[in-house]
Amino acid sequence: MKRKFLFTAGIIAASTAVLFGADEKTPQDLLAEQLASDPLLTANNVWMMLCTALVFIMHLGFGTVEAGFTQSKNTVNILFKNTAIVAIGILTYTIIGFNLMYPADGNGFLATFSRDLFGVAPLENSGLTTLDENGKAVIYNSGYSYWTDFLFQAMFAATAATIVSGAVAERVKLGPFLIFSTIFVGISYPITGYWQWGGGWLSEAGFHDFAGSTLVHSVGGWGALIGAFLLGPRLGKYNANGDMRPILGHNMPLAAIGVFLLWLGWFGFNGGSVLSAHPGDTSRVLVTTTLASAAGIMSAMATTWVLFKKPDLGMVLNGALAGLVGITAGADLMSPMESIIIGLIAGVLVVFSVRFFDKIKIDDPVGAISVHLICGVWGTLAVAFFGTKSGEPGQLMAQIKGIVSVGAFSLVVAFILFMILKVTVGIRVSEAEETEGLDIGEHGAHAYPTFTKSNV
Amino acid sequence: MKRKFLFTAGIIAASTAVLFGADEKTPQDLLAEQLASDPLLTANNVWMMLCTALVFIMHLGFGTVEAGFTQSKNTVNILFKNTAIVAIGILTYTIIGFNLMYPADGNGFLATFSRDLFGVAPLENSGLTTLDENGKAVIYNSGYSYWTDFLFQAMFAATAATIVSGAVAERVKLGPFLIFSTIFVGISYPITGYWQWGGGWLSEAGFHDFAGSTLVHSVGGWGALIGAFLLGPRLGKYNANGDMRPILGHNMPLAAIGVFLLWLGWFGFNGGSVLSAHPGDTSRVLVTTTLASAAGIMSAMATTWVLFKKPDLGMVLNGALAGLVGITAGADLMSPMESIIIGLIAGVLVVFSVRFFDKIKIDDPVGAISVHLICGVWGTLAVAFFGTKSGEPGQLMAQIKGIVSVGAFSLVVAFILFMILKVTVGIRVSEAEETEGLDIGEHGAHAYPTFTKSNV
Amino acid sequence: MKRKFLFTAGIIAASTAVLFGADEKTPQDLLAEQLASDPLLTANNVWMMLCTALVFIMHLGFGTVEAGFTQSKNTVNILFKNTAIVAIGILTYTIIGFNLMYPADGNGFLATFSRDLFGVAPLENSGLTTLDENGKAVIYNSGYSYWTDFLFQAMFAATAATIVSGAVAERVKLGPFLIFSTIFVGISYPITGYWQWGGGWLSEAGFHDFAGSTLVHSVGGWGALIGAFLLGPRLGKYNANGDMRPILGHNMPLAAIGVFLLWLGWFGFNGGSVLSAHPGDTSRVLVTTTLASAAGIMSAMATTWVLFKKPDLGMVLNGALAGLVGITAGADLMSPMESIIIGLIAGVLVVFSVRFFDKIKIDDPVGAISVHLICGVWGTLAVAFFGTKSGEPGQLMAQIKGIVSVGAFSLVVAFILFMILKVTVGIRVSEAEETEGLDIGEHGAHAYPTFTKSNV
Repeated sequence: MKRKFLFTAGIIAASTAVLFGADEKTPQDLLAEQLASDPLLTANNVWMMLCTALVFIMHLGFGTVEAGFTQSKNTVNILFKNTAIVAIGILTYTIIGFNLMYPADGNGFLATFSRDLFGVAPLENSGLTTLDENGKAVIYNSGYSYWTDFLFQAMFAATAATIVSGAVAERVKLGPFLIFSTIFVGISYPITGYWQWGGGWLSEAGFHDFAGSTLVHSVGGWGALIGAFLLGPRLGKYNANGDMRPILGHNMPLAAIGVFLLWLGWFGFNGGSVLSAHPGDTSRVLVTTTLASAAGIMSAMATTWVLFKKPDLGMVLNGALAGLVGITAGADLMSPMESIIIGLIAGVLVVFSVRFFDKIKIDDPVGAISVHLICGVWGTLAVAFFGTKSGEPGQLMAQIKGIVSVGAFSLVVAFILFMILKVTVGIRVSEAEETEGLDIGEHGAHAYPTFTKSNV
Repeated sequence: MKRKFLFTAGIIAASTAVLFGADEKTPQDLLAEQLASDPLLTANNVWMMLCTALVFIMHLGFGTVEAGFTQSKNTVNILFKNTAIVAIGILTYTIIGFNLMYPADGNGFLATFSRDLFGVAPLENSGLTTLDENGKAVIYNSGYSYWTDFLFQAMFAATAATIVSGAVAERVKLGPFLIFSTIFVGISYPITGYWQWGGGWLSEAGFHDFAGSTLVHSVGGWGALIGAFLLGPRLGKYNANGDMRPILGHNMPLAAIGVFLLWLGWFGFNGGSVLSAHPGDTSRVLVTTTLASAAGIMSAMATTWVLFKKPDLGMVLNGALAGLVGITAGADLMSPMESIIIGLIAGVLVVFSVRFFDKIKIDDPVGAISVHLICGVWGTLAVAFFGTKSGEPGQLMAQIKGIVSVGAFSLVVAFILFMILKVTVGIRVSEAEETEGLDIGEHGAHAYPTFTKSNV
Repeated sequence: MKRKFLFTAGIIAASTAVLFGADEKTPQDLLAEQLASDPLLTANNVWMMLCTALVFIMHLGFGTVEAGFTQSKNTVNILFKNTAIVAIGILTYTIIGFNLMYPADGNGFLATFSRDLFGVAPLENSGLTTLDENGKAVIYNSGYSYWTDFLFQAMFAATAATIVSGAVAERVKLGPFLIFSTIFVGISYPITGYWQWGGGWLSEAGFHDFAGSTLVHSVGGWGALIGAFLLGPRLGKYNANGDMRPILGHNMPLAAIGVFLLWLGWFGFNGGSVLSAHPGDTSRVLVTTTLASAAGIMSAMATTWVLFKKPDLGMVLNGALAGLVGITAGADLMSPMESIIIGLIAGVLVVFSVRFFDKIKIDDPVGAISVHLICGVWGTLAVAFFGTKSGEPGQLMAQIKGIVSVGAFSLVVAFILFMILKVTVGIRVSEAEETEGLDIGEHGAHAYPTFTKSNV
């Protein structure tokens, strides 16, 4: 279980405040005062707030990498989706997701709704204390406040939907995609998240997924796979003979900015998943994260240099992301050397995976399926082959159990959602709109309307 | 009063050091040594340094959002202004602003100059201790060192001038604008800031402005309004019949980068305004800030979808900023639900406000007046309608008092400054220069001289 | 010596663990447990991890500033190099550099290899404790964990090679450049780094270089100088008469993004060089760093306004970097006013230096030599003229000793490396490739293949 807390605290606290009156301090108030100047809690919470900010900036990373790897006629649409998804992800997580993922109660498979975010955390609640089963005031969590807990998880949640966005780019209808995202991130993601991080059945089964190779990246990746499959390839990606013709992106600096921001954000994604600022654990996670990414770059570089005779920037950038996704499940378990090996393998995998999906005509403009699904699966399996859990009996089976169960659930939900949307409102824009670009079709705007190469 | 300190400390400390001799440790030295390893002060100060860095990066956010929303022929000029203003803002704040805003003494309306930054904080001063009225060594502030205090405030100050930059873009003369900025940020901003945050008359009047909906954003917004009004609209914005013809920006990815960086920076802007790393207060502020921004996106999206039939990226980006400006005054007072409501209203407001200013022929290329002035006023008023201060008698009147007094002062100063510049050196470039672009006129350079869409 | 630790700890610790058995806690385990919840260590380590992340983002800054200042036909190549160098720098530092720079033992000039990164820090090592010479468990370092120590230094190391990248841009062959970088950053940089920060001979000589004006920036600058000299100027930079014809960049927003990210990263570069979160020292360093940068902007602006009649954006951006490089050696020693003076001089220096190197036909597309070498030397010398060490006898000689010895070593290594590569595989691309652009020649790709100014 990723963390513990007592969910009924807010309601009880509120009643307590009423009972004790405004002037007299409750035991909870006194504890909250003491915690407010507790140096370790303060330092831990600073780290977790920093990590929250870093995960937030990943959304800009996703937006720019997707915009860079696609055509300029669809840039407004891509930026719009990525902006909207952040808002949708955070708000749905506020209203329902946080409850579903870390519920008051649940049967291990589905949460029961006994906590309302707005109710449990009124303003007068410091976010530092809660009450134990005997009604005694206790610290909420020594690693962060209630508010940081919520916000860090909310930023995380929004990333799962963003992953889908890249794979369905340049042809998906805006409205249906936003509906899909809302339900996928608001309901599906927290349910599978609850299975593991909320203390559900999977966490009992010995599954290990430190920061979400499966629970975040594969979840997004399955959605991406279904979306790309049901939409079909972009016009012109395959000619009449079925031969692939690459549709290149429009702005490699944007793509590079995106990848570096994602790497930066991953320090918070993985580093914050320690759920405190534990000086040994957090910093080791940053080391394993960094080494895997660097190794992913090197092996993607070598692979493309051999395959294409020239090293490929797009693949190297995806190699960094591949290493990052690959290390995410076991960033807390690996030695430096093991992190490098995991990254090296991820960097090779992503290159061949992109070619494979191109071959089977799953058109994924940014390589999201290869990066997040394939390397997410790889990273989850790697926990059984490398690191301190590799020796444990049944670990491989536990990892497979997690991959399959979370994958099956996400895949089925994504399939049902996209199918319903497809047969009702449709999920793909018209050929005319796709040819002209979704910027005009969906937004009536261009990305670079008054751009002039000035010296011409 | 935003914070307290003893201003004469430096001078006394220096004398003390002389009296005690170099080898013997003064009580101040001993306290400084102890504070240097105080874990709570250290954690607090780390947070405040992080927030300082986050506010710094807002300047890149302002620069890119303005560059993105304007034409490429004026891009060098916009980037130049935003770079220069950072430097000017920080240096004027060093020389005069910090003194004016947090003065040794003052009559409540204007500071008296009894502290010199360079004098009060010589190198041998650790920045951790000061002396109380009895000459006893005491801690400077438990939330940060003297140096962090100064730098956080200096980064803040520079944002006020940057806001003006967007509204006067694409037609203002560089030199006069830099002169305006220097005086506006160096003198006008700290004077009104002193009224509230420096312990002046407004802080006695019950006015609440947590992180500056009024003191920063409206101040910049009034300057923007006066500037845009006195300059008149850009050539071609209105035809002979007075009909508006939109002049579009040149780079939506740049604008999106800017808005995400501003949102990121706002975690420091609002989170740092707690003036310590108090684990409950800081993290709650991050939650209210984030929810308001997300809500601003949603309502701006809905509003433009209804009004224009298609959702507008530019407006959605401004909706995020609108929510952020709107929550700034009361980020410490609101519940999650109240933050969402404030953001929703701000996101609608900004769309109608942009249309309104277009209609009355105040040409604001980036929507700075709508975002910073209109939503700044809204956020300040919202303190009286929502949150823990909403019930207090006279709160609405106190908020209006703050809005009107700070607004009147800033507006008059901006008007006088721009008028003096207009009648002396002129504030608007020639028609020929405006048509060709300010990049050539003011800098003799292009933003994209060797840009080639390579495959053509 | 920049920091201390006991290098044989890991091996001893591992043996100890075996001796004591798995269930019984060793003294080292007990100390590690205690340290894991030590609030001061936690706060210090949070700061150092933040600084590590900030130095990481400098690499994106380098990449974008170089891409922005060069032609779009070489953009893929520049982004590729900057991505690859991060990976190469981190991995070589892992394998050899960290050992060479902070060795188990050494004769003051060269390290002996007694520590293997992968060996010394196995997973079971918390990274918090080590053993003293008597085998007693002691804290590794009160400012950070072993892992943070390594990662912060690794991020640092990669910057030295990146500096070279800019000066040799638009004509250097990819493969040879990567080989050069690997050896320069993996061997040469750590050797000279050991002389000072690893406790070698230079640190005994009284040399002061707080965060690397010499040890990082000049080192990179000497490599840049040799590279640019041996390659010769780009085609078309000088006509038949030897007259200079400027080859402009392709994207000033990218360059501005780069400079702001570098400035942001410098808060970590200098602030982290305190090697703890000491609240007085860290925050003062941020102040001196910021003021020098702001001053560099102002003086570069003034200088170009006078020289060219119009203020130059590129030079102002380089002025910010000049100020930052200039303050780096003495950021811990200077008063605010002294920082401003150092920055003002750096901002003037960089403008004249760029003109000087243009005149002597050293073609440096981004001004890397002027920014990093010239201002690195200036900043190192400034330690003898300003700040608390300026009064010390022999300080100027010590500074010169450092500049000359580190410079000579780096210059000779760079010369030998580039010469070997030149006479074997060649270091410059063919004229045809240079004319067409390295993006096609080295990578078979364009940076903006599907970029369309949409309304055309």
